[in-house]
Amino acid sequence: MTLFIQEFRRANAASIVAVAGIPGKPRDFFQFGTVFVADYLITQGIQLNSQQVGRAQGFFATSSLDGANLQLLFSLGFTNKEYNGSTLELQGTSVQLAKVREIAVVSGTRKFRFVKGYATLETIQQPSMDYSVRRFNITIRQC
Amino acid sequence: MTLFIQEFRRANAASIVAVAGIPGKPRDFFQFGTVFVADYLITQGIQLNSQQVGRAQGFFATSSLDGANLQLLFSLGFTNKEYNGSTLELQGTSVQLAKVREIAVVSGTRKFRFVKGYATLETIQQPSMDYSVRRFNITIRQC
Amino acid sequence: MTLFIQEFRRANAASIVAVAGIPGKPRDFFQFGTVFVADYLITQGIQLNSQQVGRAQGFFATSSLDGANLQLLFSLGFTNKEYNGSTLELQGTSVQLAKVREIAVVSGTRKFRFVKGYATLETIQQPSMDYSVRRFNITIRQC
Repeated sequence: MTLFIQEFRRANAASIVAVAGIPGKPRDFFQFGTVFVADYLITQGIQLNSQQVGRAQGFFATSSLDGANLQLLFSLGFTNKEYNGSTLELQGTSVQLAKVREIAVVSGTRKFRFVKGYATLETIQQPSMDYSVRRFNITIRQC
Repeated sequence: MTLFIQEFRRANAASIVAVAGIPGKPRDFFQFGTVFVADYLITQGIQLNSQQVGRAQGFFATSSLDGANLQLLFSLGFTNKEYNGSTLELQGTSVQLAKVREIAVVSGTRKFRFVKGYATLETIQQPSMDYSVRRFNITIRQC
Repeated sequence: MTLFIQEFRRANAASIVAVAGIPGKPRDFFQFGTVFVADYLITQGIQLNSQQVGRAQGFFATSSLDGANLQLLFSLGFTNKEYNGSTLELQGTSVQLAKVREIAVVSGTRKFRFVKGYATLETIQQPSMDYSVRRFNITIRQC
């Protein structure tokens, strides 16, 4: 399935915030040790006002000494009709400057019990520093 | 299998503590960005003095902007005879005010190698603000 | 597969750093609530200068009230030829003073899509307080 992640970095409506880091270091995306909590809107289409599908919520950390990689841990909670209340659980590494990042789908709940698979993430629109859209391709199967 | 999670929130013997959060915000369960580390006693029966089965240990974060959801990541480490030293690994979203929360069992170790499944959590007793008991139903299969 | 984890604790080139903890408590490995971010070099052989295989990156927390256990969440990102860009995702409990620790391999990406399994960790050399080597045996299968 193909979904879209809507990311905001506006001060008052940020999708992701830094909550911990190495004392004395800036808490930014390319600083080893920074920990973030995130809540992203997921939509069916690329447009911000397209059908809402759910939220991707979890925590991330800049996990490489050179700042290149984020370790991601989040759940994709569906809110649309058929899958309302079901989740997919994801974990993996995002190479921040790579064109396509791939992470693992480790499991799921309710309609997605016993699934596993993988997902790719690709930033496809970044109209401003404060807003970007990522394409999120998810491949799962039950086992 | 059905187990029970014994939660304490007493200052000196708390099962869960806040360790990070958004600077300047309160570190509570309904504040987006709060990160917790937890260690819960797991028992066979509902009573606190029933047979001890193990501990559920890991970290949680309030992961929705509206404060409703926690992202959970923990291992259930068994200490009782047959399963002593074996673990189940869990990840998922807890909708804090939902009657029944479902999270994913993503894998396990030793006696539980190659398993996956799901677990439901339901608060069944809350005799005080400082103590509550949750029913924890776990369904797993090997694959 | 058998790999080796090279850990440094030197101030300027540490593989692991504390980033959060209980306010007022020391942020060390045996203090409940301490959160760490880690980036370890993984090699083919036991020697530091043997073939580099990848990096193990993620976050850990001291997750037992008595300080004995760490909850681990990390990805093993391969950088060597055949598996370059592929990852394994791991989660579990490390009983810090146990001779052999076992954690779960929950999933993987690219060459390791749809896998699961388990891994054992054993500290085999600790020539100084600042440097140690762990043997990392990984067993996976696709499902």
